[in-house]
Amino acid sequence: MDTRPDSTMADDEADDFGLPPGIVEDVREAIEAGDSARLHALLDPLHPADVADLLEQLDQRERRALLSLWRGGVDGEVLSELDESLREEIIEALPPGELALAVRDLETDDVVDIVEDLDAEGQEAVLGALAAADRIAVEKALAYPEYSAGRLMQAEVVRVPEYWTVGEAIDFLRSGVDLPDQFYHVILVDPRLKPVGYVTLGRILSSPRSTRLRDITEDSFRTVHVRDEEGTVAHVFNKYHLISVPVVDDDDRLVGVITIDDAMTVLDEEHEEDYLALAGVDETSIGDRVWETAKRRFRWLLVTLIAANVAAQVIAQFEATIEQIVLLAVLMPIVASMAGNAGTQAVATAVRALATRDLNPSNALRVVRREIGVGLVNGFAFGAIMGLVVLIFFHEPMIGLVIAVALWITLTLASLGGVLVPLTLNRFGIDPAVASGPFVTTVTDIVGFFVFLGIATMVLL
Amino acid sequence: MDTRPDSTMADDEADDFGLPPGIVEDVREAIEAGDSARLHALLDPLHPADVADLLEQLDQRERRALLSLWRGGVDGEVLSELDESLREEIIEALPPGELALAVRDLETDDVVDIVEDLDAEGQEAVLGALAAADRIAVEKALAYPEYSAGRLMQAEVVRVPEYWTVGEAIDFLRSGVDLPDQFYHVILVDPRLKPVGYVTLGRILSSPRSTRLRDITEDSFRTVHVRDEEGTVAHVFNKYHLISVPVVDDDDRLVGVITIDDAMTVLDEEHEEDYLALAGVDETSIGDRVWETAKRRFRWLLVTLIAANVAAQVIAQFEATIEQIVLLAVLMPIVASMAGNAGTQAVATAVRALATRDLNPSNALRVVRREIGVGLVNGFAFGAIMGLVVLIFFHEPMIGLVIAVALWITLTLASLGGVLVPLTLNRFGIDPAVASGPFVTTVTDIVGFFVFLGIATMVLL
Repeated sequence: MDTRPDSTMADDEADDFGLPPGIVEDVREAIEAGDSARLHALLDPLHPADVADLLEQLDQRERRALLSLWRGGVDGEVLSELDESLREEIIEALPPGELALAVRDLETDDVVDIVEDLDAEGQEAVLGALAAADRIAVEKALAYPEYSAGRLMQAEVVRVPEYWTVGEAIDFLRSGVDLPDQFYHVILVDPRLKPVGYVTLGRILSSPRSTRLRDITEDSFRTVHVRDEEGTVAHVFNKYHLISVPVVDDDDRLVGVITIDDAMTVLDEEHEEDYLALAGVDETSIGDRVWETAKRRFRWLLVTLIAANVAAQVIAQFEATIEQIVLLAVLMPIVASMAGNAGTQAVATAVRALATRDLNPSNALRVVRREIGVGLVNGFAFGAIMGLVVLIFFHEPMIGLVIAVALWITLTLASLGGVLVPLTLNRFGIDPAVASGPFVTTVTDIVGFFVFLGIATMVLL
Repeated sequence: MDTRPDSTMADDEADDFGLPPGIVEDVREAIEAGDSARLHALLDPLHPADVADLLEQLDQRERRALLSLWRGGVDGEVLSELDESLREEIIEALPPGELALAVRDLETDDVVDIVEDLDAEGQEAVLGALAAADRIAVEKALAYPEYSAGRLMQAEVVRVPEYWTVGEAIDFLRSGVDLPDQFYHVILVDPRLKPVGYVTLGRILSSPRSTRLRDITEDSFRTVHVRDEEGTVAHVFNKYHLISVPVVDDDDRLVGVITIDDAMTVLDEEHEEDYLALAGVDETSIGDRVWETAKRRFRWLLVTLIAANVAAQVIAQFEATIEQIVLLAVLMPIVASMAGNAGTQAVATAVRALATRDLNPSNALRVVRREIGVGLVNGFAFGAIMGLVVLIFFHEPMIGLVIAVALWITLTLASLGGVLVPLTLNRFGIDPAVASGPFVTTVTDIVGFFVFLGIATMVLL
């Protein structure tokens, strides 16, 4: 497949979706002028996601001023959309009455999403603002592990007995019962509340009243367990093209439902984390200040520093060799760079394949063999190229031979290590995405220096 | 936020979703035995996505044998789920009659997805198998640019006049008209077919018959243009929590609809590409053989080799310095590693922020200033640490000072460059995700060597 075109912000599309152009400046002006009416005129028409974006673009002082000028504007949905770091700030700044109004009209899964990241005081403030039934549902969800299906689901479900007909379902839906804001299926349950299938609303609307619901259920039906990882849930949605999934407890009873928009958010977040992890960045926000950002990047830089010092120790063992042939010092970073890149390529391929379950115990051996093959092929190719470069430009045939052999060996080892490290971490239940990135480049540095300088010492001295 | 738990394949969850354990071996046995009945028993109950996974686990010879034993088994949905490289192989292997049956019951967007990656001959085979109306719809979609909303949408829409009531809509839906397999909204259009809002099926079902549809439309309503990038469409879905989006042409007329499951697939693919690009891997498949895989990784390794040779040239300029102080050769990879990691951290953060539109012209300057700040802070910290290490373990205070200053400068430059490169690429319409990864690490190598050896030469000789 060709490379996709750029889908990030381009000039001509930046304004199509998202904040209207110039609004940040207009809002700033209104804040400075203390013009509450103008703020309402600017902010009220915006989608909550855009209001959240806008709040993230302001600084803390401006946000405070905005909150006191835009009374009643921050509703539950805006809170849902806010970045976690800002959400805490805003919730603390909101008067209790306004906070109560804001959270009351949210589905329980959105309340859980807000509450789980707050400190005890903030949690109490939000929980206290809820109606008793909602509060119980939220507290129940909070009892499930973080990042589990139980935290992600909404307790509001539309369920009917499995023996009902389309007509009975339509009459039930039209009887004025309290229905969730968003629902796409009617879930069929047996007498013990075990979900046995679901029917789309489209199918119900287009089927004769006498049709039995169990005769028009979807093939794609499957359930997830309340303690399944949310990443697994997102994978199931994506793989089977689901729109909603019933959640069951240990007794297989229906306890909630997860909808695809929440699964998509999870998929997006998991990808983002993996991406940043490959670069050695802990989760980050564009709103973070210098100090926070520096702290979040410190950990992997420290790991890199330690590994780089080990690499330096390896080089130090060959000081005598380098003293005699300085060209080795000139060439050794080439071996390290190439091995680092080849290792990262293998790691990234393996991490993605593990995440999509394309790489699994039944084909692991074949994939490992393939990586060795790729390392041998590319190692030979780049070894030959580099050997010729040294021969032609430095007129050193023996050093050319040394770097050729060293590249061949290290690229093969890097490919092999690049697939074995994620496989091993995964085997022991450690997320390979988080632990494999900068680690591999520094290890390949060490191996690259050792192989190159080692062979050089053996052959040339 | 804490780090999420591992959501990739763990031992205890590998079997919950996906292929039943041992089935690959059972299928292989059935193929060897030529046991068609057993193959049907094994494969017929599987979800198309699982059949596709299974086909990907077999080798080419086994797949051929399976196809001739499992007559009529490969339906359109299996073709949809297959990896592109395999899909072409399977379509060529299928008898024309079976191919016709397979594609006939697909929605047009799925047919487009299959057809667009085939060669001319394969395209003709699939198009020829379609009913005339579907063929026209598919050919129309293929006229839109690759990776555009026009390719992603399905032409089948459910639209009603904007002045209708709930009762009229229900009667229309129940009148036996041909409805799409999956639909979640009824789209309201004006007399010129311009979409003006949509109503969820849940809302229609729960509202009195006399309610006007235009009074119960969703606030989240928005349309996309038929030539919008699919990545932009996925972003809009994710940001505004949409379930489906009407697609309009240049005259603002409704021409199709995109549903969230397709948007989720796009989001997943775009993330996967960005992730692999950061590691310098072109799009890849676990089914690729050694030669293909090696070829796909060659390009970035070649870029790395060229850049590494430039870095070597920089070091070569300082051969005389290194000859006198070999310790510099020992320490110089530390500077390069640290700068490479700091640069990649800044790149990854900027690329993600651009993709989510968190980084945009109105806050670009602030983010650039922040990156300089982060570079200064972490550069100072790691410079100080490394200076002390050299002082304590190598008893070389002046070299310790040189590496401290060099780290401070290069980490700051790496942070700055790490944000400026993606911003600049994006400004010129080049996807920063594709072009920033391995490039930055090699450039930071060059800068690192130059700064460290340059300062050393000035101060120490």
